[in-house]
Amino acid sequence: MYNFNFCCPTRVIFGKGAIEELPKYIDRNKKVLMIYGGGSIKRNGVYERVKKALEGYNLSEFGGIEPNPKCETCMQAVELIRREGVEFLLAVGGGSTLDGTKFIAAAAKYEGENPYDDIMIKGIEVKDALPLADVITLPATGSEMNDGAVISRIATSEKLPFHSEKVFPQFSIIDPETTFSLPARQTINGIVDTFVHVMEQYCTFDVNAPLQDDWALGILRTLIKEAPKVLSNPADYDARANIFWCATCGLNNWISQGVPQDWATHMIGHELTAFYGIDHAQSLAIVQPRLLKNQKVSKAKKLAKLAREVFGYNEVVDLKAADLAIDAIEKFYNSIGMKTRLADYEIDSSEAAEKIRERFKLRDVHLGEKGTVNADTAYDILKAC
Amino acid sequence: MYNFNFCCPTRVIFGKGAIEELPKYIDRNKKVLMIYGGGSIKRNGVYERVKKALEGYNLSEFGGIEPNPKCETCMQAVELIRREGVEFLLAVGGGSTLDGTKFIAAAAKYEGENPYDDIMIKGIEVKDALPLADVITLPATGSEMNDGAVISRIATSEKLPFHSEKVFPQFSIIDPETTFSLPARQTINGIVDTFVHVMEQYCTFDVNAPLQDDWALGILRTLIKEAPKVLSNPADYDARANIFWCATCGLNNWISQGVPQDWATHMIGHELTAFYGIDHAQSLAIVQPRLLKNQKVSKAKKLAKLAREVFGYNEVVDLKAADLAIDAIEKFYNSIGMKTRLADYEIDSSEAAEKIRERFKLRDVHLGEKGTVNADTAYDILKAC
Repeated sequence: MYNFNFCCPTRVIFGKGAIEELPKYIDRNKKVLMIYGGGSIKRNGVYERVKKALEGYNLSEFGGIEPNPKCETCMQAVELIRREGVEFLLAVGGGSTLDGTKFIAAAAKYEGENPYDDIMIKGIEVKDALPLADVITLPATGSEMNDGAVISRIATSEKLPFHSEKVFPQFSIIDPETTFSLPARQTINGIVDTFVHVMEQYCTFDVNAPLQDDWALGILRTLIKEAPKVLSNPADYDARANIFWCATCGLNNWISQGVPQDWATHMIGHELTAFYGIDHAQSLAIVQPRLLKNQKVSKAKKLAKLAREVFGYNEVVDLKAADLAIDAIEKFYNSIGMKTRLADYEIDSSEAAEKIRERFKLRDVHLGEKGTVNADTAYDILKAC
Repeated sequence: MYNFNFCCPTRVIFGKGAIEELPKYIDRNKKVLMIYGGGSIKRNGVYERVKKALEGYNLSEFGGIEPNPKCETCMQAVELIRREGVEFLLAVGGGSTLDGTKFIAAAAKYEGENPYDDIMIKGIEVKDALPLADVITLPATGSEMNDGAVISRIATSEKLPFHSEKVFPQFSIIDPETTFSLPARQTINGIVDTFVHVMEQYCTFDVNAPLQDDWALGILRTLIKEAPKVLSNPADYDARANIFWCATCGLNNWISQGVPQDWATHMIGHELTAFYGIDHAQSLAIVQPRLLKNQKVSKAKKLAKLAREVFGYNEVVDLKAADLAIDAIEKFYNSIGMKTRLADYEIDSSEAAEKIRERFKLRDVHLGEKGTVNADTAYDILKAC
């Protein structure tokens, strides 16, 4: 096992009626900005519940954070915050709204003129941020219990992550009932997103950390068991709760302590979203099976374990079991209605492969747990998608 | 799944050389009290490493916290703290030293005259505590990542727990190399303690929380795999690291979110320790198999899952599988050298059963996830031990 340094101070308030607990956790004397997305929270009742819970607070609103939240939109919120003297941010919605809010929290306290360039591209450390919390309504990104965010910039077709302990939510409210009304597409996206998050942390090489491995596989086993339940009965409370807890635990860094991580699928997928606007989870479902095939030899031991302990295969030859695992993953995605080929989204694989190779060459990327996925590897992977 | 409210703000710094990171996490301007136990840290080099890491700090010391830390000893530390104006507590040693330090931290800020009576017996809320952290050298109690402590009082033969978010360690330093020199008895105690902690949180009734179940069983699977390794090769770093991470995760409340909990084995075991002075883990290993037999019908589903998913049995009848699981647990304890009968410790079962029944009657206890383990049940269980 590798050395590690872990901290996750976010409080999770989970369950039916959790939204009504809001006033226990926000200081009444603070000026609060509620940040949300495209308005789905106005249709599913969450907006009203939050407003009611926060009656008597000095509360402003900022709506319109997009899926794949955009720097340009976030900077409008920063202006509002500075103008109105906002002291506390409450993200209400999905992971995009929360990611946007994390960037807003950091940018609002940042003194340079170009926080996106400085934080995302130059990697300058975030030294301060407004305190933030969230009512998270979409099980997917795990953003509700981690210190990361991914932000896009229209001007440059970029989509890049940042991390800072300063943007851990103080608390996250998860009421699984808020997910009953999710469109199937979003439910499916969230399941795939979670599955891939776990794989990025598990499916590397073995460093003799069996508890982390077992916990990662436990999330995958639970997703596979619970996914058909939420799709056939969207109001199955326990299944919704289980899927949500999987999503949160899939990226709160519990399973990644002391082990190597991959994230090449994400980095390639982000480019597909940046260039073609497809959903984040769709990009992952397209890239991952081909990336795993491409990296099969170096990931064979973990893939074989996955084949045996999640998908129930008895195959004893690791490389054969690895193939079975990769096929089983793609079949699982297809079985819940997720398409896994570029052609399914009317994207030309040669063009995509070429564009992303060029960008990766410029950035001289070396992705994956061993840094072996470079621009040319990404090209091969995307050509096969 | 039940509703839950989870928060665990403790930072964990885990791995080789972690002790040398101490100065990054303690303010140099604070007056620090290092608290330790019977002196084992002076024999294994930890004392020297901590002293060296904290050179230049205003550092006092308080040694002599016992296994099953005693209120009487802790109150001496409280006097020293008040006399010297200590501002930060650093526990260095095992779970007993850390538990004692948590009580000291709370008692030092408590204004009443009898913190033990008020906090442990009357359950008065801890409103403030000195900040604390630890270098934990024994994988067992999980105290390094939770807000609980168990404290004994000689004067009244009592051993009682308390919980308060105010006593979460700010950080916990875990260097698995510090455990290479542990006596086998302590290694074995820690493994059994962890196993029982997990069972207290897992082995109740099913509330449809498959991820929590799977994670609990993952800890048990890992313990069973790694225990023989550390016993046959005490300097196996990875095995020591895996056992330690199991111990920490066994009681940092991850696996208990949204599920019922038992803790009857612990409450009965505490009385055995209070009356007869046997090790905490020994008391658990004695009580648990008999308690599980006694409660088998109500725990059948979870015991059967344990039999199948941890011990590999194919038995399809839950009650039969439950018996197999209970026997397999006791065999596992015996296989690593833990004795599981009162007679092995020269304790008369009739006398113990009688004494503890009397005390439980006085306190009118109703233990276990359904409150069905009362004084008479405890009597039956202990008679069978």
